[in-house]
Amino acid sequence: MKNYFIARSRRLRSTPYTSRIEKQGVTSYTSYNHMLLPAAFGSLEDSYHHLKENVQIWDVAGERQVEILGKDAAKLVQLMTCRDLSKSKIGRCYYCPIIDDKAGLINDPVILKLDENRWWISIADSDVILFAKGLAIGNKFDVKIFEPNVNILAVQGPKSYKLMEKLFGRKITDMKFFGFDYFEYSKSKHLIARSGWSKQGGYEIYVENEKSGLALYDKLFEIGKEFNVKPGCPNLIERIESALLSYGNDMDNEDNPLECGLEKYVNLDSDVNFLGKERLKEVKKKGITRKLMGVMIEAKEINVSKSISLVDHKNLKIGELRSGVYSPYFKKVIGIAMLDKPYFKVSQTFKISINDTVFEGKVCDLPFI
Amino acid sequence: MKNYFIARSRRLRSTPYTSRIEKQGVTSYTSYNHMLLPAAFGSLEDSYHHLKENVQIWDVAGERQVEILGKDAAKLVQLMTCRDLSKSKIGRCYYCPIIDDKAGLINDPVILKLDENRWWISIADSDVILFAKGLAIGNKFDVKIFEPNVNILAVQGPKSYKLMEKLFGRKITDMKFFGFDYFEYSKSKHLIARSGWSKQGGYEIYVENEKSGLALYDKLFEIGKEFNVKPGCPNLIERIESALLSYGNDMDNEDNPLECGLEKYVNLDSDVNFLGKERLKEVKKKGITRKLMGVMIEAKEINVSKSISLVDHKNLKIGELRSGVYSPYFKKVIGIAMLDKPYFKVSQTFKISINDTVFEGKVCDLPFI
Repeated sequence: MKNYFIARSRRLRSTPYTSRIEKQGVTSYTSYNHMLLPAAFGSLEDSYHHLKENVQIWDVAGERQVEILGKDAAKLVQLMTCRDLSKSKIGRCYYCPIIDDKAGLINDPVILKLDENRWWISIADSDVILFAKGLAIGNKFDVKIFEPNVNILAVQGPKSYKLMEKLFGRKITDMKFFGFDYFEYSKSKHLIARSGWSKQGGYEIYVENEKSGLALYDKLFEIGKEFNVKPGCPNLIERIESALLSYGNDMDNEDNPLECGLEKYVNLDSDVNFLGKERLKEVKKKGITRKLMGVMIEAKEINVSKSISLVDHKNLKIGELRSGVYSPYFKKVIGIAMLDKPYFKVSQTFKISINDTVFEGKVCDLPFI
Repeated sequence: MKNYFIARSRRLRSTPYTSRIEKQGVTSYTSYNHMLLPAAFGSLEDSYHHLKENVQIWDVAGERQVEILGKDAAKLVQLMTCRDLSKSKIGRCYYCPIIDDKAGLINDPVILKLDENRWWISIADSDVILFAKGLAIGNKFDVKIFEPNVNILAVQGPKSYKLMEKLFGRKITDMKFFGFDYFEYSKSKHLIARSGWSKQGGYEIYVENEKSGLALYDKLFEIGKEFNVKPGCPNLIERIESALLSYGNDMDNEDNPLECGLEKYVNLDSDVNFLGKERLKEVKKKGITRKLMGVMIEAKEINVSKSISLVDHKNLKIGELRSGVYSPYFKKVIGIAMLDKPYFKVSQTFKISINDTVFEGKVCDLPFI
């Protein structure tokens, strides 16, 4: 696949870290919430191995926050997600599918409960702020909704714990998964969560004070030398192996959370009021007609820039591949695909055409590892 | 400025024309409504001259449609825009600022009235569909809201009239500016509007039938040889010279339409009900405190990837440049800037630092030409 340049403009916002990552060798970008998100620093495979063994600092400022503040904040947040947040706690992160009244997925953010009346929705790539504003205006909710100036730095990889402990002490390694707390650096308090878009462990630093955040960025590289720290970004190989779903890639507004394997986050038996609840009850009763699953393909290379059909031995379409990459671990292509009923079963075989060559593949459960 | 690649994935959707423009020499992309929008075919300046003298075919599928259908469609559309649509006519396009309850701009689409109960909002780069859904759900409006599979082809440039007349006859050249009608090609009806994101004249073909649209694409290149047709895309030089504002670049949710010179589309004396009306009345009464204006800078080159401060002779900030480009017509850099009160006046001088060199500049009215 030929490479194309990305055209720069104010509309694809830079982040506070952009000038730093450009000095550090970023080679490609994607756009994410109207912002530049680094997509590679040279070889994807080198970064993959490095991430699994060391520690990386990621500019993930594109993961914007939607702040919901005020008397009706909890009510609005709950209205948007099928996950029951009635027992949620301040200081915790919650992975929450956001759906519309037809149960179509709108986003799959991590929601942080900062206070009873103050929440951050840490969003994937869609303008959740507009959905929240529309709902709040229509329902006459007493809330303020805005995008605070928060620019996340992620520290990811197995050595992230030692690196962060060196700077913030034992308090940070004692923090539980999806917990968050406040840590001081360079005279500023930073909200730091034990989270991140890899399964290699680590933290996300919700930088509000840019100056302090930039000092922290430099400090992490300085003291991280002994842990072989490098700049990085969400890694396509690692995230597919770990089955971290990507909104817009693996799922979109045409899909509901039950089709996407998100049952754990769909609380239909709860008393809480959320959009799409009745629709999801119907879907559950009738059973889903398609399902997001893993696939393994006997190929050595793939570039997925749009859905690619999966067909059976009669060349009838049985599903579509939505993300895919060559996995050095499995030594074949792995991917995430939406399979139609009745083909969404483990070991279902299929054929797929990649660059005019037909390859054999097999359906499997997620995650791969 | 160094060039970076754009990372491809399903999340940055391809268009039906992507494979064609890649054969035709597209060199860079931007993302627009989660879709690839071509940003250059080689030299920006060559394309600019060609566009002003000939005719170009543009893949502007990224200009997505939000369809609002049903009994309350007109009410919802009106609620979202400060332009009075009570006397709007079927078969006409309307440039409409969409604003929220604080009068902050959310988008600046062209709205097409297809029928009393059926509208297309042809959007700039933000998820208007989510705002519309939120408002409709909250207000319990009887409407369906969805993104139809429409992929616009623009035919732009002074020779667009002759090219389109060759294919569709006199009916298409008789059509008035911002009118639309239906034209048959290859057994499909295509909605074609006399519109487009240049001031060089032309049409936008709202392709619903992909197969017919691709045949039409090829046909336009085939019969366009005598008019020196070339592939193209919205041209930064031409659009700034013509002062076609770009949402996300020149204006965003922090700005209101009165600050952006959109008074013509703000109907505060009308009886219609729209969001932000009271706020806009206050703004109008007090007077705006900043204004979007043109600027000319005595420089030969600029790359605007984020706001750049404009300062007075005492180095105090008086505004910010949001878009800019070298204009071969004026033989200097021209741009669009937000100027603070009291500096938003013609001939106001300022200084600007571009790549560590300070240049002199002057404020002017829009459009430049």
